[in-house]
Amino acid sequence: MSLRPARQEPIAGLYEPVTPAGHAVLDRLRGYLPLIRSTAAEHDRAGTFPTGTFDTFRKEGMLGATVPTELGGMGLDRLYDVAVAILAVAQADASTALALHMQFSRGLTLGYEWRHGGPAARALAERLLRAMVAGDAVVCSGIKDHHSAVTTLTPDGSGGWLLSGRKTLVSAGPVGTHFVINAQTDGTGEPPRLASPVVTRDNPGLSVLDNWDGLGMRASGTVDIVFDNCPIPASDVLMRDPVGARNDAALAGQTVSSIAMLAIYVGVAQAAYDLTVAALARRPEPPQAAAQTLVADAGSRLYALRATASTALATIDVLNTDTSMDPGERGRQMMRPFQHAKMMVNQLAPSIVSDCLTLVGGAAFTAGHPLARCYRDVRAGGFMQPYTYVDAVDFLSSQAFGIDRDNNYMSHWAIRARSQGSATAESPSKLLSR
Amino acid sequence: MSLRPARQEPIAGLYEPVTPAGHAVLDRLRGYLPLIRSTAAEHDRAGTFPTGTFDTFRKEGMLGATVPTELGGMGLDRLYDVAVAILAVAQADASTALALHMQFSRGLTLGYEWRHGGPAARALAERLLRAMVAGDAVVCSGIKDHHSAVTTLTPDGSGGWLLSGRKTLVSAGPVGTHFVINAQTDGTGEPPRLASPVVTRDNPGLSVLDNWDGLGMRASGTVDIVFDNCPIPASDVLMRDPVGARNDAALAGQTVSSIAMLAIYVGVAQAAYDLTVAALARRPEPPQAAAQTLVADAGSRLYALRATASTALATIDVLNTDTSMDPGERGRQMMRPFQHAKMMVNQLAPSIVSDCLTLVGGAAFTAGHPLARCYRDVRAGGFMQPYTYVDAVDFLSSQAFGIDRDNNYMSHWAIRARSQGSATAESPSKLLSR
Amino acid sequence: MSLRPARQEPIAGLYEPVTPAGHAVLDRLRGYLPLIRSTAAEHDRAGTFPTGTFDTFRKEGMLGATVPTELGGMGLDRLYDVAVAILAVAQADASTALALHMQFSRGLTLGYEWRHGGPAARALAERLLRAMVAGDAVVCSGIKDHHSAVTTLTPDGSGGWLLSGRKTLVSAGPVGTHFVINAQTDGTGEPPRLASPVVTRDNPGLSVLDNWDGLGMRASGTVDIVFDNCPIPASDVLMRDPVGARNDAALAGQTVSSIAMLAIYVGVAQAAYDLTVAALARRPEPPQAAAQTLVADAGSRLYALRATASTALATIDVLNTDTSMDPGERGRQMMRPFQHAKMMVNQLAPSIVSDCLTLVGGAAFTAGHPLARCYRDVRAGGFMQPYTYVDAVDFLSSQAFGIDRDNNYMSHWAIRARSQGSATAESPSKLLSR
Amino acid sequence: MSLRPARQEPIAGLYEPVTPAGHAVLDRLRGYLPLIRSTAAEHDRAGTFPTGTFDTFRKEGMLGATVPTELGGMGLDRLYDVAVAILAVAQADASTALALHMQFSRGLTLGYEWRHGGPAARALAERLLRAMVAGDAVVCSGIKDHHSAVTTLTPDGSGGWLLSGRKTLVSAGPVGTHFVINAQTDGTGEPPRLASPVVTRDNPGLSVLDNWDGLGMRASGTVDIVFDNCPIPASDVLMRDPVGARNDAALAGQTVSSIAMLAIYVGVAQAAYDLTVAALARRPEPPQAAAQTLVADAGSRLYALRATASTALATIDVLNTDTSMDPGERGRQMMRPFQHAKMMVNQLAPSIVSDCLTLVGGAAFTAGHPLARCYRDVRAGGFMQPYTYVDAVDFLSSQAFGIDRDNNYMSHWAIRARSQGSATAESPSKLLSR
Repeated sequence: MSLRPARQEPIAGLYEPVTPAGHAVLDRLRGYLPLIRSTAAEHDRAGTFPTGTFDTFRKEGMLGATVPTELGGMGLDRLYDVAVAILAVAQADASTALALHMQFSRGLTLGYEWRHGGPAARALAERLLRAMVAGDAVVCSGIKDHHSAVTTLTPDGSGGWLLSGRKTLVSAGPVGTHFVINAQTDGTGEPPRLASPVVTRDNPGLSVLDNWDGLGMRASGTVDIVFDNCPIPASDVLMRDPVGARNDAALAGQTVSSIAMLAIYVGVAQAAYDLTVAALARRPEPPQAAAQTLVADAGSRLYALRATASTALATIDVLNTDTSMDPGERGRQMMRPFQHAKMMVNQLAPSIVSDCLTLVGGAAFTAGHPLARCYRDVRAGGFMQPYTYVDAVDFLSSQAFGIDRDNNYMSHWAIRARSQGSATAESPSKLLSR
Repeated sequence: MSLRPARQEPIAGLYEPVTPAGHAVLDRLRGYLPLIRSTAAEHDRAGTFPTGTFDTFRKEGMLGATVPTELGGMGLDRLYDVAVAILAVAQADASTALALHMQFSRGLTLGYEWRHGGPAARALAERLLRAMVAGDAVVCSGIKDHHSAVTTLTPDGSGGWLLSGRKTLVSAGPVGTHFVINAQTDGTGEPPRLASPVVTRDNPGLSVLDNWDGLGMRASGTVDIVFDNCPIPASDVLMRDPVGARNDAALAGQTVSSIAMLAIYVGVAQAAYDLTVAALARRPEPPQAAAQTLVADAGSRLYALRATASTALATIDVLNTDTSMDPGERGRQMMRPFQHAKMMVNQLAPSIVSDCLTLVGGAAFTAGHPLARCYRDVRAGGFMQPYTYVDAVDFLSSQAFGIDRDNNYMSHWAIRARSQGSATAESPSKLLSR
Repeated sequence: MSLRPARQEPIAGLYEPVTPAGHAVLDRLRGYLPLIRSTAAEHDRAGTFPTGTFDTFRKEGMLGATVPTELGGMGLDRLYDVAVAILAVAQADASTALALHMQFSRGLTLGYEWRHGGPAARALAERLLRAMVAGDAVVCSGIKDHHSAVTTLTPDGSGGWLLSGRKTLVSAGPVGTHFVINAQTDGTGEPPRLASPVVTRDNPGLSVLDNWDGLGMRASGTVDIVFDNCPIPASDVLMRDPVGARNDAALAGQTVSSIAMLAIYVGVAQAAYDLTVAALARRPEPPQAAAQTLVADAGSRLYALRATASTALATIDVLNTDTSMDPGERGRQMMRPFQHAKMMVNQLAPSIVSDCLTLVGGAAFTAGHPLARCYRDVRAGGFMQPYTYVDAVDFLSSQAFGIDRDNNYMSHWAIRARSQGSATAESPSKLLSR
Repeated sequence: MSLRPARQEPIAGLYEPVTPAGHAVLDRLRGYLPLIRSTAAEHDRAGTFPTGTFDTFRKEGMLGATVPTELGGMGLDRLYDVAVAILAVAQADASTALALHMQFSRGLTLGYEWRHGGPAARALAERLLRAMVAGDAVVCSGIKDHHSAVTTLTPDGSGGWLLSGRKTLVSAGPVGTHFVINAQTDGTGEPPRLASPVVTRDNPGLSVLDNWDGLGMRASGTVDIVFDNCPIPASDVLMRDPVGARNDAALAGQTVSSIAMLAIYVGVAQAAYDLTVAALARRPEPPQAAAQTLVADAGSRLYALRATASTALATIDVLNTDTSMDPGERGRQMMRPFQHAKMMVNQLAPSIVSDCLTLVGGAAFTAGHPLARCYRDVRAGGFMQPYTYVDAVDFLSSQAFGIDRDNNYMSHWAIRARSQGSATAESPSKLLSR
């Protein structure tokens, strides 16, 4: 498959996909946009997940968009094109885009396991990927521990594991059928390592809470899930590095998992801008001086926003297919542009939305106004991992100055959790009540 | 009464009142802060007005804070001290501060009518002011017409008036007993003029809607009110300038009415900053590099925010007592620093709050988190009159370049409404249904 | 020639050329960088033009870099690659990059005349292009009239023209052999039109002043030139649109002429950043918190700067080869991304340089420090045509709101000059004395 | 003396002095402004010190402006009023304001020694102060060591000292008669302490270099001075704390010494703004949309700039006269608002000046244009001590989080210099050659 688009277009600005698979996915998604748009306000208000939309996605194979064609998926494998698709959805509803990104992202990372992993990982990945295509799997991801618990795998004594702990901020949780979780082993026998168990919805120890009530992204179903001695077969655990390994190779997967989320905030900013220009153009009076200035300024920031995100995506797509590099160096080379772009997205997108509120005026300050939703949703970008702003400064400045440090935020968290001796002693039933 | 504080303190930063009345009002308000703070979250969530708090205010004479002592009030007459009081309330709850400001502001402007108006105006003002002290009046203000109607006074044929139209964004509406409304006469007999009728809650043609559902300021009861041929005696109408009079003297009253609202946003920013620094100081790890930088930067912006608002308030207090100047020049000299300060407040306060969210992290992105409320509330500052950002640019640039124009935004609106021929023909019963 | 780079790299960030010609030109320019770098400070201080460098460029065929291969040039025809080359030079010296850009830009626009013009234009273009390759021509461009004169062509009565007037801000003037000038005909016989006469250095009426003394770009030889009845044969005049034609097709050529200049400011910012990071990395103490934060922030802005400029360049390169579009629409589609990118470049590049001064500290505040030069040079970006910030707001907001206006700034100037009735009556000898 | 101005004006905005002494000094300075203004451009270009202006200042007693009246001075003792005076001078020429501030600042700090010091300090201070009044003394201050040397006092064996080292950035050096230097003792006998020897111009070991060549502030004579075993009698040394004492009391004097310098940058911004508005108002066309917006925005930032600086000054004036507080707490309470204000000044003032260049256009980019000078001069604010931006973040964040550290930057430097073992071994004759 060629990087080159058919029509001599540059890979720039996230305006059009660059692969046939990208075009195919976008075309199909466009069919769902009226539905997504028409239910966005009510789900936002109620804080409910658009289960109907996701049922349709499941039934119509949409969740297999990024699954390799060999496994029956649509074969979308370019981050740039994933972003173009997510951007289109985000213009209709940012929450839906966030939840859908989760699936697209899982397709990409499980696809990587399927192509490059060991036999056990490949088998597990294939199973999940085929289920996504069949509409039998909505695969969620749980990264961040609730402050009260370190999510830990303990050997069950017969070759399997028991998983306990609590994850927070698991998007699409209400419809999730499988949860790929970031955990650590308890250190029995060998030093603790990072690991990714896959927990199915019907696991007897699993509880999916209904506790999402966000400032924004209210329809994203970003709930907590609690594990109370969930039995996990060894074949359902992807083993990672030992805690504290300082292996920057992990940054590649983290980048691939998350970078296309930037398109959510690009989409929100674009939607806000379009709506605002249209509203002002409808007014009988010509735009006042400051309205002209703000529209030109905000339009330029929107241009830079698209350019910056798209440049990072295009660069990382190239690195993503280059397996000849040193894995650590490749990880850092992927994470750096991602973080540079993320910093700018989280600065530019909210500023564009805020200027749009200024331009539209008081009407935009009512709870149900589309711009009010944009104002709340766009702020989520600053909280996405990796990294938060504060962590990104540590990463980027250490890269600039050549200072050695552990760049794997999951490893960081694991070490910090251990040093603070938190919560594994707490019984999960207690955790449930919070 | 002296401009000088007792303790040789400069009039700076809105840290302390500068008059005994200011101290007295602030001391009493401090007693209510625990109540205000404890109910803020639930009123914000439900979008309900803190009627209980205002009942207490009413019964305990708090609504007479700015009523002259001669009429039984507490005699607070310095805008600077009004702002200090409002700031304290806003740190607990911005919505309550906005609704309370409405009363304090009415005390000031009615006090001015009582001191400087003609006999009819003085009588009307005294009546309202005494009622505020007695706890019998919550006086609301209706400035902005709903887009569907020009609020108009038509002669009733026997010396009185009939009022029809609709006002939007009337804060404290749910508990309002009197509504001082910005209207225009219909031009029968003489050219249309601006006028301020006072409508009592029990007027047969008055409907107070329950339609506030804001992005922020959700507990401020900022509703619409509809007038359907409300009979208004001539004695209850304060007559202003003809529409289009270009009388900049009106800017003085507009400044006095609104400038202390800046303190709401200062209070929100201060509350966000305090909460954030406390949260970070509690963490076991030392603050990371970017956290140190953001705290220092945001703290400096907070300092500038307080300094800028307080400087404008102190300057305007001096002009407010100087009746020797040309009234138009005085109006412009008061409006300019107000607008300069307002522009900066609406830039600095939201940026401080946003940085606080960044520092506190994902927890701040839940709907009920105090910072999430700050994030929504602080954005209201851009929509307060006079002026919006876009209008402020027109005003300030014309002042800088010496370009003559009509600076009275109410007059502007009246002219525009007339030229667009809107809505007086629409029946109020139709208006009610929107 | 393919848009695709050899190594699967995306067209992104202005890191590498995308065509073989781009690589060839960059490789040769790299050989000159030590010379350029080593003389930059002294030319900056003295305000002198690097004549030696340009002599070398001329002799070694460098001025034919963008001349079509059919005419003996190096055939560089992609704006993206022109920008990559200019960026590399600007990292060594911004003034040299500005003067060299002038030549590269002339090669492109004259190449367009040679390919698409009428017979007379083609002959003129070919003559100049071959002279550039041979090292016999340094072709300068004069756009902006001195405030004292409207540069005007008057018929000489025998089929040729007489040119009088004065141009300001003509870069590389000290070594210019040919001057392509923006003028207007005097309206004798037919309505005035825009026209581009080519004036040779030896024209008896031409004076090249030695009057450049810039805040920055001090080695760019950006002088005034005065025309005192210069005889110009008809064959040396490229005729354009009538004044006031509102022909947006002209925007295409204006974009091609100027957009690669953005790379100058990208280069200055990159040079400042590299120098600063290196200086801090050499210090014995680890970087303080704010240094870490600023380096991460400035690095991210630098990333966005490169991404934004490169995205605009890549987009415009595609439009530049697409002659199937409506010419007016093509002009607007090229100018919009150029202006969006220019706005951001002029905001981001100076902010990066200023942060670098902060990081390096007091040493950077001495006149000869490389960062002090960057600080002065980078500010030039705001003054480059088209457009200034103020004009760009008019253009971009009218595009956003669909407001029709004359977007050709040269036409604007011509109309304004006429309406103010300036200066054609003034004798050029008077002009010389200013 | 009262804090209250005569005309009921608030202490706000640095528009008018608040004390009679302030009015007297400002009135006299106004008489010199035409001279200062008329020679500013030529001194800027040549990088020469306005010796003539300072000769006049000296002869006419201007250098005694802040000397107590008891010693024959004009008795200006309010920082606010010092700032008002410096601001007026800075509007004419920032370099002159910087050099004059040095004298005003010395009057204040020596006045403090005279009032509150021990007998030796009082005698020394009185001698210098009387000489300032008489026009016999121009007292300069040398704070920052050249990177090559730690300025050190070594006992001369007979009760006096020998001073060696090199100071950089000593403003008004060309006309300095006395140099109050920050040094440390060499640690013979007792631990090293900070000390302030006073070196007279005729000291045999003193060399005043002629090496200032700044990016801006080019007429400020900010040179290096070298000490080669200068004999200093014990009576000419003010002894301070031991190195590393962590005595925050020192912050009070550092604040008093430096805060009024903020007015320099306020003055530059005001001058740039005034000049720009006047230039635009003269143009025949009405201002374009972006010009209106920028003028309103920049005017608002200028308002905030004045408000922020004036609030810090007024606050610190109160603390300055309050000797009842804990000295360390007083030091911190003075330094905090100073640093908050300084951060904002260094952000707001350059942004105003840059917008002015944008508004005026290309003419402002010539070396001799007043705005070009403003652009270079205003950037100096970031390099003034205490603190630089990076150090200010350390100070302010540690104050916010309650983290204990050494806040005395001179002590910091002394410790760092010792730990890096620099340069005391180098012979001063070597130092001279750099």
